[in-house]
Amino acid sequence: MSVTRELAAYLIGSRPDQIPSDVRHEARRAILNYIGCAVGGSREDAVQIALKVLTPFSGERTARVLGRSERLDPLQTSLLNGISSHVLDYDDTTPSNYIHPTSPAASALFAYACTMPVTGADLSHALVLGIEVQTRIGDATYPAHYEAGWHSTGSIGVFGAAAAIGKLLGLPLQNMIWALGLAATQSAGLREMFGSMGKAFHPGRSAQSGYMGALLAQAGFTSGEYGIEGPRGFASVTARQFDLPRITRDFGSDFGLRRNTYKPFPCGIVIHPTIDACIQIHREKKITPRDVRAVHLKVAPLVLDLCSKRDIGKGLEGKFSVYHAAAIGLVRGRGGIAEFTDATVNDPDIKRVREALTVAVADPSIAEDEVIAEVTLASGERVVKHVEHAIGNLARPMSDGELEDKFRDQAAPALGAQRANELIALCWSIDQLADCRMLIEATAPAP
Amino acid sequence: MSVTRELAAYLIGSRPDQIPSDVRHEARRAILNYIGCAVGGSREDAVQIALKVLTPFSGERTARVLGRSERLDPLQTSLLNGISSHVLDYDDTTPSNYIHPTSPAASALFAYACTMPVTGADLSHALVLGIEVQTRIGDATYPAHYEAGWHSTGSIGVFGAAAAIGKLLGLPLQNMIWALGLAATQSAGLREMFGSMGKAFHPGRSAQSGYMGALLAQAGFTSGEYGIEGPRGFASVTARQFDLPRITRDFGSDFGLRRNTYKPFPCGIVIHPTIDACIQIHREKKITPRDVRAVHLKVAPLVLDLCSKRDIGKGLEGKFSVYHAAAIGLVRGRGGIAEFTDATVNDPDIKRVREALTVAVADPSIAEDEVIAEVTLASGERVVKHVEHAIGNLARPMSDGELEDKFRDQAAPALGAQRANELIALCWSIDQLADCRMLIEATAPAP
Repeated sequence: MSVTRELAAYLIGSRPDQIPSDVRHEARRAILNYIGCAVGGSREDAVQIALKVLTPFSGERTARVLGRSERLDPLQTSLLNGISSHVLDYDDTTPSNYIHPTSPAASALFAYACTMPVTGADLSHALVLGIEVQTRIGDATYPAHYEAGWHSTGSIGVFGAAAAIGKLLGLPLQNMIWALGLAATQSAGLREMFGSMGKAFHPGRSAQSGYMGALLAQAGFTSGEYGIEGPRGFASVTARQFDLPRITRDFGSDFGLRRNTYKPFPCGIVIHPTIDACIQIHREKKITPRDVRAVHLKVAPLVLDLCSKRDIGKGLEGKFSVYHAAAIGLVRGRGGIAEFTDATVNDPDIKRVREALTVAVADPSIAEDEVIAEVTLASGERVVKHVEHAIGNLARPMSDGELEDKFRDQAAPALGAQRANELIALCWSIDQLADCRMLIEATAPAP
Repeated sequence: MSVTRELAAYLIGSRPDQIPSDVRHEARRAILNYIGCAVGGSREDAVQIALKVLTPFSGERTARVLGRSERLDPLQTSLLNGISSHVLDYDDTTPSNYIHPTSPAASALFAYACTMPVTGADLSHALVLGIEVQTRIGDATYPAHYEAGWHSTGSIGVFGAAAAIGKLLGLPLQNMIWALGLAATQSAGLREMFGSMGKAFHPGRSAQSGYMGALLAQAGFTSGEYGIEGPRGFASVTARQFDLPRITRDFGSDFGLRRNTYKPFPCGIVIHPTIDACIQIHREKKITPRDVRAVHLKVAPLVLDLCSKRDIGKGLEGKFSVYHAAAIGLVRGRGGIAEFTDATVNDPDIKRVREALTVAVADPSIAEDEVIAEVTLASGERVVKHVEHAIGNLARPMSDGELEDKFRDQAAPALGAQRANELIALCWSIDQLADCRMLIEATAPAP
């Protein structure tokens, strides 16, 4: 058996009742997190521009763009959903391969599910499989593929979208092989785009390309039979080293979703431990801005390589400043969307802590998900908080309640608190939904 | 100056009057050859399937698919044009990098030109630039990029489409840089697809992706600034070795179109010398099938590696049989579309020469574009023809008249002889056309 064929055979044979309940719950968490990110990102410039440019190139407008009043055809909607759900860099991450796996697969699935009744259980099952394909191909080609410069959320995400849509289409084996082959030959996305809208374009285009590949394959458009493992196939063309047997090992018992994580803060991951520690101090000591006299951080050296800017004026810059991280944690006791706006960056209380009171020292003995934060209070008291694993890591996953808080932070400004809560309930109950359109329509802003 | 910026600056600064007349004539030849291939391929299964699948996903249907009665939106039409013009493996080739350069750029241009009046001179100029971009990036990354397994007609063609459409859109410098960046990050296409419909999909998808990238860039969708040369950009991600200065050297004096070639026969290029020699013998000796008693070919070893099947039943197999090549040349005196049908492969006269009378011997002293063919006639006469460079090579380019014959061979079955000739005249006169739609509409089949 070839890898592509064996993978296709697993996909077409998988039944919902074979997915363990913990994995199904993780899929619900992934969906909750994804919908929140898509709604939260749906007003960003990259989305607005793409929507304006692509609307004239849409077929019948049957598929709602998540979080928006507009509809496009489902292929164009899958592209838009991919952009909005990734543009804030707030979506999920599989640490073993750095893929943000939900966006490419779910962006295609939620577009497809606008066009006909799809049960929540079927969509969730297809998402599990789409993420499974990405995780397996990602793990088999990591780190060589990523280090070569590929943004694997795009270049591997395309397989997830093709597999997920192919599953909902009920493709037979040969057609699923072609769908994976057409995904392979559309694999794209360069890390050179980081810092531009091109980054968020990647999961969008991969969702659309995978979806289109599955449709073409269904109709008999052929691809090579060995799209992944062939001598001129995906693995050997895009990675110097790879471990193909990982793609097909332990089907049905090992699930990539179990190793997926969710970002608690919409900013560079290396400053998460600092925010985490400072929020804890804020809560324990009920700190007000004037209580802070001095902050001393011991961080991993990489933190100062990437995030040592202190004199900043833009929200986007705040996402990559360890000093800003300390300030928002101590002053606000949170690190949500509102803490990375231009206004917050220029808030005098935040500026004071960031610019005048905080010192950060690189210490090679500190790990990248670790920090030791020492805060001296106006009373003279010194508070030390040692975070060994930042919240959101696999070792300390976000709780369901924390995911809900994150969701509200993103969705409530657009939908209001009540509708945000209703949407949360719909995400948790997805396995009972007879038609996912109920959930999709609930993301629309009030008319 | 960075490579991407310098290339973008050249593109936006180029004026039609700066293109030398020989290059403009080569552009006309490329267009004639391209239109013939697109019309000739427009009934193939890959086109039919893609058209059927993608029609529901089309915006306003303003752009005619070349050679067909259907229209789609211009982005979808660019994809279809790319498939039809490449599907017969009959389009042009730049031997220095193995790119088939006209299909990706022209497929986008002829779709765009359906949506508003574009003069033939402007379209031709944009095509020269699109091909220039592909040739320069192709030469700079050859052979490493191609040997890695990339089908550069797709993976580099996307730059040509973005540049050509960006030129017609009149993009300013910054937006042209983004268009090239969005092309880079959509670069895709694996050689593993060879032998499947996926191969013809590549120039189509690259035309569509480049076109879309240019539209997004026009509207302010940003990409990285160094899409080609950056540390995680196109060149370093997709090629182990490359020569970036080649991309920007001798702008305006060196033109890739001068090194472009046209296939005289719709089959594997290594059997072209044999067809060429046998056609010459057929013509000189006015051979009828019964005149042939024996054929002895001295060919390059690669020819027998790739094309040594003799016992064949399908037209497609005939494209890769050196024995079939000899038979059609001697019996028919031509090697057009009709010589690679199932019917011709099973024609008794052709079978007899192919299966019973022809011997082929590998000789390492024979080059890949060379053959020595010795034919023994029924009269006992022995005729030897030594072709040192097969017709179609850079050393022996097809004449304008031969390109017209090739065009008729592809277009006349669909359009009739008279309309095919009218279309030829339109292609030659493209620089005088006030609106390219006149030419595009002339490719439509009779109602």
